[in-house]
Amino acid sequence: MTYSVAVAGASGYAGGELLRLLAAHPEFEVRTVTGHSSAGQPLIATQPHLRSLAHLTLRETTPEVLDGHDVVFFALPHGASGALTAQLTDVRLAVDCGADHRLTDAADWAAFYGGEHHEAWTYGVPELLVGAAGAKQRDALVGASRIAAPGCNASTVALSLAPGIAAGVIEPSDLVSVLAVGPSGAGKAAKTHLLGAELMGTANPYAVGGTHRHIPEIQQALRGAGAQAPVTISFTPVLVPMSRGILATSTARIAPGVTAAEVRAAWEDAYADEPFVHVLPEGVYPRTADTVGANTCLMGVAIDEAAGRVVVVAALDNLAKGTAGAAIQSANISLGLPERTGLSVDGVAP
Amino acid sequence: MTYSVAVAGASGYAGGELLRLLAAHPEFEVRTVTGHSSAGQPLIATQPHLRSLAHLTLRETTPEVLDGHDVVFFALPHGASGALTAQLTDVRLAVDCGADHRLTDAADWAAFYGGEHHEAWTYGVPELLVGAAGAKQRDALVGASRIAAPGCNASTVALSLAPGIAAGVIEPSDLVSVLAVGPSGAGKAAKTHLLGAELMGTANPYAVGGTHRHIPEIQQALRGAGAQAPVTISFTPVLVPMSRGILATSTARIAPGVTAAEVRAAWEDAYADEPFVHVLPEGVYPRTADTVGANTCLMGVAIDEAAGRVVVVAALDNLAKGTAGAAIQSANISLGLPERTGLSVDGVAP
Amino acid sequence: MTYSVAVAGASGYAGGELLRLLAAHPEFEVRTVTGHSSAGQPLIATQPHLRSLAHLTLRETTPEVLDGHDVVFFALPHGASGALTAQLTDVRLAVDCGADHRLTDAADWAAFYGGEHHEAWTYGVPELLVGAAGAKQRDALVGASRIAAPGCNASTVALSLAPGIAAGVIEPSDLVSVLAVGPSGAGKAAKTHLLGAELMGTANPYAVGGTHRHIPEIQQALRGAGAQAPVTISFTPVLVPMSRGILATSTARIAPGVTAAEVRAAWEDAYADEPFVHVLPEGVYPRTADTVGANTCLMGVAIDEAAGRVVVVAALDNLAKGTAGAAIQSANISLGLPERTGLSVDGVAP
Amino acid sequence: MTYSVAVAGASGYAGGELLRLLAAHPEFEVRTVTGHSSAGQPLIATQPHLRSLAHLTLRETTPEVLDGHDVVFFALPHGASGALTAQLTDVRLAVDCGADHRLTDAADWAAFYGGEHHEAWTYGVPELLVGAAGAKQRDALVGASRIAAPGCNASTVALSLAPGIAAGVIEPSDLVSVLAVGPSGAGKAAKTHLLGAELMGTANPYAVGGTHRHIPEIQQALRGAGAQAPVTISFTPVLVPMSRGILATSTARIAPGVTAAEVRAAWEDAYADEPFVHVLPEGVYPRTADTVGANTCLMGVAIDEAAGRVVVVAALDNLAKGTAGAAIQSANISLGLPERTGLSVDGVAP
Repeated sequence: MTYSVAVAGASGYAGGELLRLLAAHPEFEVRTVTGHSSAGQPLIATQPHLRSLAHLTLRETTPEVLDGHDVVFFALPHGASGALTAQLTDVRLAVDCGADHRLTDAADWAAFYGGEHHEAWTYGVPELLVGAAGAKQRDALVGASRIAAPGCNASTVALSLAPGIAAGVIEPSDLVSVLAVGPSGAGKAAKTHLLGAELMGTANPYAVGGTHRHIPEIQQALRGAGAQAPVTISFTPVLVPMSRGILATSTARIAPGVTAAEVRAAWEDAYADEPFVHVLPEGVYPRTADTVGANTCLMGVAIDEAAGRVVVVAALDNLAKGTAGAAIQSANISLGLPERTGLSVDGVAP
Repeated sequence: MTYSVAVAGASGYAGGELLRLLAAHPEFEVRTVTGHSSAGQPLIATQPHLRSLAHLTLRETTPEVLDGHDVVFFALPHGASGALTAQLTDVRLAVDCGADHRLTDAADWAAFYGGEHHEAWTYGVPELLVGAAGAKQRDALVGASRIAAPGCNASTVALSLAPGIAAGVIEPSDLVSVLAVGPSGAGKAAKTHLLGAELMGTANPYAVGGTHRHIPEIQQALRGAGAQAPVTISFTPVLVPMSRGILATSTARIAPGVTAAEVRAAWEDAYADEPFVHVLPEGVYPRTADTVGANTCLMGVAIDEAAGRVVVVAALDNLAKGTAGAAIQSANISLGLPERTGLSVDGVAP
Repeated sequence: MTYSVAVAGASGYAGGELLRLLAAHPEFEVRTVTGHSSAGQPLIATQPHLRSLAHLTLRETTPEVLDGHDVVFFALPHGASGALTAQLTDVRLAVDCGADHRLTDAADWAAFYGGEHHEAWTYGVPELLVGAAGAKQRDALVGASRIAAPGCNASTVALSLAPGIAAGVIEPSDLVSVLAVGPSGAGKAAKTHLLGAELMGTANPYAVGGTHRHIPEIQQALRGAGAQAPVTISFTPVLVPMSRGILATSTARIAPGVTAAEVRAAWEDAYADEPFVHVLPEGVYPRTADTVGANTCLMGVAIDEAAGRVVVVAALDNLAKGTAGAAIQSANISLGLPERTGLSVDGVAP
Repeated sequence: MTYSVAVAGASGYAGGELLRLLAAHPEFEVRTVTGHSSAGQPLIATQPHLRSLAHLTLRETTPEVLDGHDVVFFALPHGASGALTAQLTDVRLAVDCGADHRLTDAADWAAFYGGEHHEAWTYGVPELLVGAAGAKQRDALVGASRIAAPGCNASTVALSLAPGIAAGVIEPSDLVSVLAVGPSGAGKAAKTHLLGAELMGTANPYAVGGTHRHIPEIQQALRGAGAQAPVTISFTPVLVPMSRGILATSTARIAPGVTAAEVRAAWEDAYADEPFVHVLPEGVYPRTADTVGANTCLMGVAIDEAAGRVVVVAALDNLAKGTAGAAIQSANISLGLPERTGLSVDGVAP
């Protein structure tokens, strides 16, 4: 069967990527797109790359407009989807690409976001290790009716470090991640510090020193992966001149007595059978370009014996596998569709 | 007086930046430029941005051509300058921008470079803390006749972490640095992985896992700054799409019992009087754009109490303060010129 | 049925894009990939973005290896495919993405390329107007066994100007095209002037003054579109910092007595029913980003009455619609498959 | 003597570049900087690259604040400076980097800008040919008290074509210019279409079809250069992913009977003695990178005999020679200082 789909927040970057992927998905039919200031315009006016959806017009983002679709994807600023999703009465599956339903702990929400805390939905990172014995988040997504797609930075780091945490080969208490990220993750609202002239030819750090909102999400995910001690992470994102992409360099101290082979095996075993997450051969590291538009996360793992640390370099497309692709992959699982349906593993490079 | 100057390796990127700065320097006169495959060509054919030096022609890089100048700057691939500089008999000051004379330990050289080890020259990072009580490398440069300009990544990281090491407020044994770097640091030789199409729109890691040649240089510098324990560092550079610039995110565990104010004071005190290294106000972090073409290193310092780490984000222009600017600043000191002579503190932004 | 496919020159940029598109094509199965210096390596080593083809290994580019496939795509430097294709005895359809079989006139070949001239194959730009009464090149491609995919710049300009030429509303004797192009069109061979540091943050013209090899191809195409006078064109390409994309600004004098409405109608009528070439609404102009990875050419048409000129701004992805997409679209037509098979109209933006 | 200087609009891009150049100028002392929403802030908060001016605080932009300085530079949005400058009573030299005082013809102003037309001031392009016999605009600037710095695109095109117009070797009636431009020319106001994610990796045309405001300014300048027929120009700017720079490709039909040597001589003769405008050797074309931060305009001239056109490719830095550098160069001339004072001819490349 074909599922009817609505996308709320269709004029932004995450919304645009959802639509690009949905347009190529054989089991989903995009019937409705909504916007805020763009409501009333043709979709093609704000998303001129989506020629196949040129027939759609943006409508208002209201419960009435969204109700009645089989699946609704939300790509709204945080704080906007929580109230809205509570009013839906006739939506089989809702997938929120915003932050409102990611955090289980109201104190985390208060500390990093503020405003009303909403219940956490099933977390949309299927490959994430949870609990013991190689279990994955995938199982929880089967049949789920409410899914929280991950933060793009958070899922990149969680996927990078969960194998070592779950296997007990790294120490969870002194993690460090530094990310090179493209500005599309910051959204399409006009802000001076996101102007092209401010970002071209330069690297710009932001949210330095433990203030980024994805930190509690990472900690929650790594606790879920079985951390045997509190998870602490130094997390620094750096805007670099590429429209899309995250390259996360994450490093952790290797636990005492663990061998290099055991470290490497933790990662290789975790993702050996995954269609979208790949550990590259020893000595090979990924580039973000190789994941552009694809639903893949590519990962290189180095053991630095002199430093006593494992270094995991992970690349993904923040809009694709980091947001919209994860949302659709999770929706596929929820609905019982083959997980890979409509999702490419081939990046657009160079 | 005006010093006569030669630049060996004038057709590359470091050579070009040396010449750009020397052309604006009131006490230096560039008399000779040399190249390898470019010898015989007008300089302007390989450095079309250097209009003020359009009268110069590239000569062969030989001892005969270089001898007799007051100052010779070398901008050659590592391994090339060591043998050459040994043959100079009549050069008051030689400054090597290559790696040949940076490392004091032959074992380090053998492990990271290979080939013949040459004696270490005076290290050209004037602001680097050395030994106790706030002493700086500047003192060693006064009157020096042989100077080793630093590796661009190495000096960025050494300047970032030395204040905490020297003050004993951070632990030297678990340092982590991740750098966003532009490809001009990799030189002008044609290599497939450095093509524009390979580097635009993507972040590309390299030398992951403890193999980068600047690691022993950083360790040497931080030992010199007074580390009370062995220095170990996890060091990962990432090529990003900007022609120039280094943004180094370095983090270290704060030593037990040290307060946030003490940490911050270590950095502010170290660089309070420096003309070219600046610690930005709390909550402010630098962008590489703000240092382009300038001899400045801008630094933001965050204390992440949850992670128990200090995070230092430092920006500089790899060709300017990272290489050619450091060389000229060191030459100024050596020759007794005012240290700022010919060096701008204002970046070319946006 | 499924057609067996080989790609010769699979380690370059055009080869990589062919493979990316072929991997998503339901009627083609890539059985063989060949390279030159890369022969013997896994494909994934040179095309790390093509995860779905990670099982393939590069073989030598020889007639023996290529013969026996239903379809062979060539992505070789010009001069290499001509001799090779002559030796094939058992290939139903050969599509050459190089220049060897594009030019009908040996004198043009001698003047712009040199070396042996090979016979022209059927030109692979289906939407190109040919002759009178709205006929298109598409018809010639039906059943063709040998197809010359176009030069990316040439097809962009030919598609931009053919409607006005065919309709007689512009003068063919004073055309001007200036193109902003990404460096992937220049190939993957390591050359100093194509280094990232040479191309980032700068616009670099090349082949100025009538020397670019795509000029005779444009003239040939526009003559074929029915030019009533000799076609002369001033053609200037400019490398800009984007890995992919062509934005061609082409302008022509409006013929005497022709109204603005007639000019606009010429373009709108020409492409009204095309799936891949679109004339945007009045006042709207395309961006290359909107065509990345897609098989679309987007076009904006302005009438500048003060200057007496029509200005056509056309965007496409040089590797996709400009090369590999055109090749596959033409192959679809040749083999009787639906023309859109395996080709997306949605770009990967931002 | 040292002249006291104020810069109005000091928090924008043109204001920042004025300040960067003024800070290095030995005869000017920046006493006052003003802003609008930024008034009250330290200058370094909005211009973090200007370390040498970190002592300055932004004040309100009022006649009272500006009056009493020897020289005032205006870098305000068009429409803002006209009223303000009329109220100054005690300013020896005012230089307006905005458009308000550029156009002599009120009808041009009404058609392209709208609002009140202000009197034209002396046009600040010293190298521009005016009238017959090689006269230059430089002469008019000597002693001028009110100067209109040029539009960056306008001066690039005017300098590109004036030599051929003045010498009568090209036809003024069918000019075509297409420009690759960086977004810093569009200013620092937050607009969605200027976001980094919208501009990276893509070429975006704007003001297509004869609507750009610099068109009447170009026509005025070329009429002044001695055009023997009405000047008509097709002008298309294209935003490309570089923060600074203009690469203008301008082409004109060669007048009947004129030889290639005569064409080339027109350009070489016009700029042979100029310190800042250079015609490159035959076959050499400029890159914008070679002019970054410098006050140079580099020009390559090709004669395309097949097309019957001269092609002039000109590069400059829109903020430097295109705006702030031209302003300071003109101020130097006005005040009787050596024209090159404080202005570099060496670009910051790569």
